[in-house]
Amino acid sequence: MRPTLAALTLLLAAAAQAQTPSVLPSADATDPQKLGWMQGSPPPPDKLVRHQDASFYKFPQTRWSFANFRQFLPTTNVWRGTGTPSALPKALRQDIDALSFTPLGQSTPMSWEQSLAANYTDAIVVLHKGRLVYERYFGVMKPHQAHASMSVTKSFFGTLGAMLVAQGRLDENALVTRYVPELEGTAYSDATVRQVMDMTTGVRYSENYADPKAEVWDHIRAGGLFPKPPGYSGPSSYYGFLKTLKKEGEHGQAFAYKTVNTDVLGWVLRRASGQSVGELLSESIWQKLGAEQDAYMVVDSEGSEFAGGGLNLTARDLARFGEMLRLNGRYNGQQILPASVVQDIRQGANKDHFAQAGYALLAGWSYRNMWWVTHNAHGAFAARGVHGQMLYIDPKAEMVVARFGSHPLAANANFDPTTLPAMQALAQHLMR
Amino acid sequence: MRPTLAALTLLLAAAAQAQTPSVLPSADATDPQKLGWMQGSPPPPDKLVRHQDASFYKFPQTRWSFANFRQFLPTTNVWRGTGTPSALPKALRQDIDALSFTPLGQSTPMSWEQSLAANYTDAIVVLHKGRLVYERYFGVMKPHQAHASMSVTKSFFGTLGAMLVAQGRLDENALVTRYVPELEGTAYSDATVRQVMDMTTGVRYSENYADPKAEVWDHIRAGGLFPKPPGYSGPSSYYGFLKTLKKEGEHGQAFAYKTVNTDVLGWVLRRASGQSVGELLSESIWQKLGAEQDAYMVVDSEGSEFAGGGLNLTARDLARFGEMLRLNGRYNGQQILPASVVQDIRQGANKDHFAQAGYALLAGWSYRNMWWVTHNAHGAFAARGVHGQMLYIDPKAEMVVARFGSHPLAANANFDPTTLPAMQALAQHLMR
Repeated sequence: MRPTLAALTLLLAAAAQAQTPSVLPSADATDPQKLGWMQGSPPPPDKLVRHQDASFYKFPQTRWSFANFRQFLPTTNVWRGTGTPSALPKALRQDIDALSFTPLGQSTPMSWEQSLAANYTDAIVVLHKGRLVYERYFGVMKPHQAHASMSVTKSFFGTLGAMLVAQGRLDENALVTRYVPELEGTAYSDATVRQVMDMTTGVRYSENYADPKAEVWDHIRAGGLFPKPPGYSGPSSYYGFLKTLKKEGEHGQAFAYKTVNTDVLGWVLRRASGQSVGELLSESIWQKLGAEQDAYMVVDSEGSEFAGGGLNLTARDLARFGEMLRLNGRYNGQQILPASVVQDIRQGANKDHFAQAGYALLAGWSYRNMWWVTHNAHGAFAARGVHGQMLYIDPKAEMVVARFGSHPLAANANFDPTTLPAMQALAQHLMR
Repeated sequence: MRPTLAALTLLLAAAAQAQTPSVLPSADATDPQKLGWMQGSPPPPDKLVRHQDASFYKFPQTRWSFANFRQFLPTTNVWRGTGTPSALPKALRQDIDALSFTPLGQSTPMSWEQSLAANYTDAIVVLHKGRLVYERYFGVMKPHQAHASMSVTKSFFGTLGAMLVAQGRLDENALVTRYVPELEGTAYSDATVRQVMDMTTGVRYSENYADPKAEVWDHIRAGGLFPKPPGYSGPSSYYGFLKTLKKEGEHGQAFAYKTVNTDVLGWVLRRASGQSVGELLSESIWQKLGAEQDAYMVVDSEGSEFAGGGLNLTARDLARFGEMLRLNGRYNGQQILPASVVQDIRQGANKDHFAQAGYALLAGWSYRNMWWVTHNAHGAFAARGVHGQMLYIDPKAEMVVARFGSHPLAANANFDPTTLPAMQALAQHLMR
């Protein structure tokens, strides 16, 4: 079968967004156990993964480090509380690996099992009707081990923002400066909380991970996630960086994915709730969810947690969070989130605003409360993070997929072709 | 009542060991909540506690930071496993606070409750016959919060060393270089594992925390626990520092408390067990103990955990560890440690070797498997850490006391006078 013109167009557009290296080493060839990262006592110099030289953020070292972020960075605990973990009854299915789908822009089908390697999967958990039907770990990952969730983090705090709005503790129509006066004089001085929550702000900030000069690198360097070069004199905290941001364009006109919006939201959440975002997450969700493990958050030198991407958690617990949303906020014997919050996420936002961002593979989607809303026939919505982190919720198929990865390339456009059709194929399969 | 001559002699000798400032601010005046450390979003500059300027290790900031070490440092998780926490049946007693004792070298009695403030206590848990009879938290501590245990850490790894010896996985009579050839040419080239485990090695290393030039500061700076000054060119890991150590005196002649011995032991444990010390602790003890919470360990830039002082855990879990030892290794329905290991600790080591260290307040004690053995009539033994960390086990009184503190002065000699007689008074009281 030859690719369709539509598929080719998609592929070309995606390639323009994606980094396109000549050849990528395979998942198998970069297995962190086989490569021996951090093995030995101490590991030999060529097997060391470190923060100080930023090697912890270089591929293929990332295949080890994404499962061990706390060994490189200061963190805070997201406490699970003292309760028994909520049940995830096992009903493992052997028929999923052989499932076949055609990646976007390709003509040759791929099996579900092949897609795991294609996406450099580190961990994947599938729930169907609340039962654990599929679970795999690769490299150094284990069921109890926390993995970096990158921008999947954002959906947690977008959800908490919507929760505070529903509870009347946060005014989505207020200017963010009502909560954070420190942002007067920045790009955010005339932005509303809602614009921040839906990322329709106009702010000069590039999220292009393929460009070493993009502001996203300044942002995470300020927070200390990356080491600062000698003589560095820029901001030394996430909030310090936010105060440097200037306006570009207008607010409320278009969706533009910029991590700083989530850190602004995190600052707003701290002021509105009186808690750090990690404490808010623990108290409002994590303790109620019956999470199996504590989660943790990367923190800067001022004690501010990285709301834009600092959450680390297990694949099972990520799936539990998804299952709670699939069930309209009711999980583990209690209404954890108001159903209206989940409804508001699922309803999505303005598709025209979204279309202006030019995601060729995501036609017809929108972005609401820091969630990616597909508006497909199943009403699916997703949390997405660089290098393959994902929580995919398909209400019609009663399916939740939590995935962690360490793909060599950052942008989702690099692995959406081998991910999105796999999600749809699995949903169809489970509904049979 | 006037102090006895013996008591005065003790006091004078202790004062010579202890730092003796003119006036110390009280525990109440340095309560971290009242002082507002790290409050605010972000905290104002004068309320910030940071790693980069080492303020996290300055009093009174330590009253906040000792309960929050992971916010300053990279860490590894000591996993508790998936089981239910072991029961700590509550049988709180109201009669303990009023208990009276006379501090060493003083004539005025002090109440148990007063001793909590005198010792800048952050958390204290007392078990009697396995029941929780007393539990208090101060400042920012909570039952589920991990606190730095400082050198209490050592007793965990001395115990694990003795366990590996009992299991035939480690030869206590072998030279440490059999396990760690990298230590050839250092002070340790002709030291045995047993000499390291009992700290009878002759090595040039000062543990005098009151002396800013003592080698202990170079040691923890190498490991990254303290920030490195600009232009620093010394070792950048714990093991790197160990390789610089030179001999001073002879091995096996006298007890001399030096943290490097425990890091050498940690290195030996890694080689003998094939696990990192944190993994070994998790698998051999933490998962079996029914700990309520994960613990964590401070780690250096090469992934080596700080065996000499990097363990952070809750007071309840520290008490569980003590209770397991009190019960000769049997706890939570299983024999966690061979009874012979506990017997070997309780039996202690050579008292003459110990006496040469000149601890005026600890006459007749010895040091075995990184435990302080009182050899008193109750057969009590203890794990002890700077600034007030302690696990005190009194087998005769069937009593275990776990305490965390943030005393402004480091050495135990500063708070032994208000601690040791309190332990004896409580033991007598509970036996009544």
